[in-house]
Amino acid sequence: MVSIIMGSTSDLPVMQKAMDWLDGHNIPFEVNALSAHRTPLAVIEFAQQAAQRGVKVIIAGAGMAAALPGAVAASTTLPVIGVPIKGMLDGLDALLSMAQMPPGVPVATVGVNAAQNAAILAAQILALSDPEINATISEAKNQLEQKIIEANRTLADLEYTHKTN
Amino acid sequence: MVSIIMGSTSDLPVMQKAMDWLDGHNIPFEVNALSAHRTPLAVIEFAQQAAQRGVKVIIAGAGMAAALPGAVAASTTLPVIGVPIKGMLDGLDALLSMAQMPPGVPVATVGVNAAQNAAILAAQILALSDPEINATISEAKNQLEQKIIEANRTLADLEYTHKTN
Amino acid sequence: MVSIIMGSTSDLPVMQKAMDWLDGHNIPFEVNALSAHRTPLAVIEFAQQAAQRGVKVIIAGAGMAAALPGAVAASTTLPVIGVPIKGMLDGLDALLSMAQMPPGVPVATVGVNAAQNAAILAAQILALSDPEINATISEAKNQLEQKIIEANRTLADLEYTHKTN
Amino acid sequence: MVSIIMGSTSDLPVMQKAMDWLDGHNIPFEVNALSAHRTPLAVIEFAQQAAQRGVKVIIAGAGMAAALPGAVAASTTLPVIGVPIKGMLDGLDALLSMAQMPPGVPVATVGVNAAQNAAILAAQILALSDPEINATISEAKNQLEQKIIEANRTLADLEYTHKTN
Amino acid sequence: MVSIIMGSTSDLPVMQKAMDWLDGHNIPFEVNALSAHRTPLAVIEFAQQAAQRGVKVIIAGAGMAAALPGAVAASTTLPVIGVPIKGMLDGLDALLSMAQMPPGVPVATVGVNAAQNAAILAAQILALSDPEINATISEAKNQLEQKIIEANRTLADLEYTHKTN
Amino acid sequence: MVSIIMGSTSDLPVMQKAMDWLDGHNIPFEVNALSAHRTPLAVIEFAQQAAQRGVKVIIAGAGMAAALPGAVAASTTLPVIGVPIKGMLDGLDALLSMAQMPPGVPVATVGVNAAQNAAILAAQILALSDPEINATISEAKNQLEQKIIEANRTLADLEYTHKTN
Amino acid sequence: MVSIIMGSTSDLPVMQKAMDWLDGHNIPFEVNALSAHRTPLAVIEFAQQAAQRGVKVIIAGAGMAAALPGAVAASTTLPVIGVPIKGMLDGLDALLSMAQMPPGVPVATVGVNAAQNAAILAAQILALSDPEINATISEAKNQLEQKIIEANRTLADLEYTHKTN
Amino acid sequence: MVSIIMGSTSDLPVMQKAMDWLDGHNIPFEVNALSAHRTPLAVIEFAQQAAQRGVKVIIAGAGMAAALPGAVAASTTLPVIGVPIKGMLDGLDALLSMAQMPPGVPVATVGVNAAQNAAILAAQILALSDPEINATISEAKNQLEQKIIEANRTLADLEYTHKTN
Repeated sequence: MVSIIMGSTSDLPVMQKAMDWLDGHNIPFEVNALSAHRTPLAVIEFAQQAAQRGVKVIIAGAGMAAALPGAVAASTTLPVIGVPIKGMLDGLDALLSMAQMPPGVPVATVGVNAAQNAAILAAQILALSDPEINATISEAKNQLEQKIIEANRTLADLEYTHKTN
Repeated sequence: MVSIIMGSTSDLPVMQKAMDWLDGHNIPFEVNALSAHRTPLAVIEFAQQAAQRGVKVIIAGAGMAAALPGAVAASTTLPVIGVPIKGMLDGLDALLSMAQMPPGVPVATVGVNAAQNAAILAAQILALSDPEINATISEAKNQLEQKIIEANRTLADLEYTHKTN
Repeated sequence: MVSIIMGSTSDLPVMQKAMDWLDGHNIPFEVNALSAHRTPLAVIEFAQQAAQRGVKVIIAGAGMAAALPGAVAASTTLPVIGVPIKGMLDGLDALLSMAQMPPGVPVATVGVNAAQNAAILAAQILALSDPEINATISEAKNQLEQKIIEANRTLADLEYTHKTN
Repeated sequence: MVSIIMGSTSDLPVMQKAMDWLDGHNIPFEVNALSAHRTPLAVIEFAQQAAQRGVKVIIAGAGMAAALPGAVAASTTLPVIGVPIKGMLDGLDALLSMAQMPPGVPVATVGVNAAQNAAILAAQILALSDPEINATISEAKNQLEQKIIEANRTLADLEYTHKTN
Repeated sequence: MVSIIMGSTSDLPVMQKAMDWLDGHNIPFEVNALSAHRTPLAVIEFAQQAAQRGVKVIIAGAGMAAALPGAVAASTTLPVIGVPIKGMLDGLDALLSMAQMPPGVPVATVGVNAAQNAAILAAQILALSDPEINATISEAKNQLEQKIIEANRTLADLEYTHKTN
Repeated sequence: MVSIIMGSTSDLPVMQKAMDWLDGHNIPFEVNALSAHRTPLAVIEFAQQAAQRGVKVIIAGAGMAAALPGAVAASTTLPVIGVPIKGMLDGLDALLSMAQMPPGVPVATVGVNAAQNAAILAAQILALSDPEINATISEAKNQLEQKIIEANRTLADLEYTHKTN
Repeated sequence: MVSIIMGSTSDLPVMQKAMDWLDGHNIPFEVNALSAHRTPLAVIEFAQQAAQRGVKVIIAGAGMAAALPGAVAASTTLPVIGVPIKGMLDGLDALLSMAQMPPGVPVATVGVNAAQNAAILAAQILALSDPEINATISEAKNQLEQKIIEANRTLADLEYTHKTN
Repeated sequence: MVSIIMGSTSDLPVMQKAMDWLDGHNIPFEVNALSAHRTPLAVIEFAQQAAQRGVKVIIAGAGMAAALPGAVAASTTLPVIGVPIKGMLDGLDALLSMAQMPPGVPVATVGVNAAQNAAILAAQILALSDPEINATISEAKNQLEQKIIEANRTLADLEYTHKTN
């Protein structure tokens, strides 16, 4: 249902967070290595066939010039989520290369190295027509809220002479 | 089906491009002015009720600190598309404020002032469960391709002494 | 009197410097974890009740999109001091997300990771109506001056062949 | 009560927005031209005497290296609000020059050219011990909310074939 | 011999400078509109056939995400010169999108909007095996030198009281 | 005594401010157009002979890659002042190209387009061994101070209901 | 045939990647240390004689102000490839110093620290008149493609509960 | 003759390079810790008396808002060299805070952390009226040249299969 692609296995440590989140929330996914600059025809073929193969959302991680998500978006009407991967220039190069797409071919860009957020965004899109995933997302949101509430308790336990809360 | 929000009517000239595209492609939408910093409770109420009102995708335009898309994303599980609007710092402030969301609350960020691309991304998401919109998108893609082919013809007509194509 | 908030306990090492300074200068404070994107209603409730609970100044630390200080400022008339916390993009994302607030909802932004300066700014605000804190600040300023004077002595002890001072 | 300073009359068009807001909300203020680099002793004298003259908050506008707010903050314990003024480098130079103050001497930095927000922040600080100004601020916040509600009505009047709200 | 491509006719005013220089120096060229994101297969086909059609160097102008030169470079072994075109973010987005290519697929990036320099670089490459173009380049260099010498004379004619040269 | 150089007459409107200041303060100067990239040998020759010709300080204005001041500094032991000239990227490219010199070959960099400040810095250097120029500089400093004092009077004349100074 | 130059041996770890690639693909090269700011006449002499010595392409690595490739380009009509080397400011200073060359003297700039890409670009230029190098490049491209195909297999072996490819 | 100042002893590791160079070349200097924001009157006093005490050039190192060189320049007509010290934002904050001075009060800014270059620039200024220092500088330049020539020899000794120089 979700297809994760990346330009090389060096992107794996970052993209793993997307896989882990999808896996942990029972959302099926596939993973492929594809390169806009090394296997351009394979990228187009992948993009053209993705919808027919049952893919609903594509997550593409890439660094530097980061052309992969745009190259995929050019040959499919499926929504493509871009994960800019931090490299030499703090990831700003990849972020701009993904967000600043020309009219007609948008890439849904998330933050630098934010592969987990890409997975959640993909799930939010799937949830539009899948009540089970919708429930999963709502549950995940509640957990995030709980985590803050627990963090608050941790802070309350810090000892200071003059703290008043 | 698509809900467009913006922080003030000064964002209208940019966000108009989203409305025009959706209107021109027969995709129903609504438009609201809401401010993360001036009407925060209205933003939460809007976000909490959007799904029930039949909204599938939210497009939020904002400039500067650009908190609106994130504030909406915090209170809904619907996908939220952020349009960074150019202001004092070339829109880089708004782009970073939208893309760099914390884990758990992604915003699908498009380029600076790229409201049309936001509309197309929204349509791509809707197209996952709406064959008619899917056809619309495919058709729009074809038109973009035709536009380049025509541009190519224009260039072929340029007169130069040594041009060979 | 001073209320320190942060989006997660990962911000604690930075925000600790604010707590330490306030604690070391006998200025009462409270600490809470609150998230603009995970517990938005709790943020609004916190902001709306802060003044009634006796809070005079709020210090909010946040990284990346850094919406917390702005979200609090939206629902209170208390002064809100923002501490941009360094993350993926050298903290520039957080700095811009805090400083570039829309008209009507200012955030008093200090430097990247400058939690101690946030505490001192809070104390300066409190000092306007509290002579004791005013004396504390003046004393702290004198100590800073002394530190430079001592640093000067350290430099004077450096041995160089041709140094003349 | 509020003292507005600027480095030259070329900053007046920006700083005027602070004066207009304070004047429009009946908050007394004074205005002076002072330069950290041209009249440094006058800056120190001004800063040292401000509290005795009844000044509670200082608003300092400056562009480029933008040393004025920091120079004032160095010689007073009053809170100093810095307004970075846009010049050659989009105001980023002034923003960094103000926000990135050394430990011990904070400047409450607002957005680029955001002199009105500086005035509001000053009023929020004064409101801590002045119920009348507190009421003024609350009223101003309500007006901002009303402005958004009116903007929403304007948007509702836009005519589109498929708009649904 | 030189093939100039651009993503749309809106890039023509910038790319014209490349055409004018090549035309003015009797170096044959062709011009095409091709888009990495709208006509990706046409880009690959163009790149794959360019060498066979007698093209020696490709000049690709593009703005924003600026994927065109990289997309072409991916499918040819001909040298590809990239011209970043200034748009929303001062051209820095396009510059980084072109220069920061992954290992194996370089793009010879010139300055923002520097289409004329792209033409000269193309000529320098052609000159390696074409003595006539080599002579043209040497002559063009001499003219640039003459232009500075004339500029020097203009400056010498400026009237100042104390000027000594 | 001061030698002003620039890469082309297009830099003249900026560099004029240096000439005007020197002329207005009776400090002799010469002006030349020289280009690090078009007349490199002339630059070296100029740099090598400058001291012998009686030049004490060199002011070099350049934009973009801005190699001129560094190229001159490489072939002389005279102090070289660099004026980064604003072009495509707000002058940041020129500023970095001048300031970030390698160890051994410093360029005294002033602000973007700050040709007048370059002239004043040159005069400050000359003043070390010329009491007349020293008096000129002191006088110029006094005038700057007077200008602020007059600006202050202008501000005092602004009419506001609640202004108190 | 290819001449690699660098400003100091501290650039060697980066530039080594260019040497290794050329050596591994049987393309003859030479290596020299030359400095635009320390040995300017040697740079000009090198540039003026390079073509006669049989050099076809020059690769120049430099950091910070990074004047070396431009200085060489000023005195030769050979194509010059610039490798910006990362230093204090993430290599952005060197990237801008190389790319933003004035009209008439282009530098073919590759990515930050991208010495290998510089070598490949040099080979692509040589390949225009050398069928053997052309075959080498085509083979190298195939190997890059194979590397991605193998990476894809690695990813396929990752074990996840719900992965579907 | 040269006076080195810095805002705190934490700047010492960077500024040490200036001291070492001056000491190694027999140029007398003094070192002081002074802070624009903590000891502003001491800074003015230092600046006002420097010339009388025999100081010819002032080198001021500072990080972040980096007001020290400007504050000194405001109260002396001696040339002031600024060394931006790298901190949270790669030193870009300090570089802009120093270079972007207002008209009338220039700071001769060198590169980030370039304290040695500041020392050399100071020596170049002193050399204008001191033939001994002039000889020292010329000698230092020769040594830099020798260092490159030796580096060249090191490179020539690298073993490669196909290297030709």
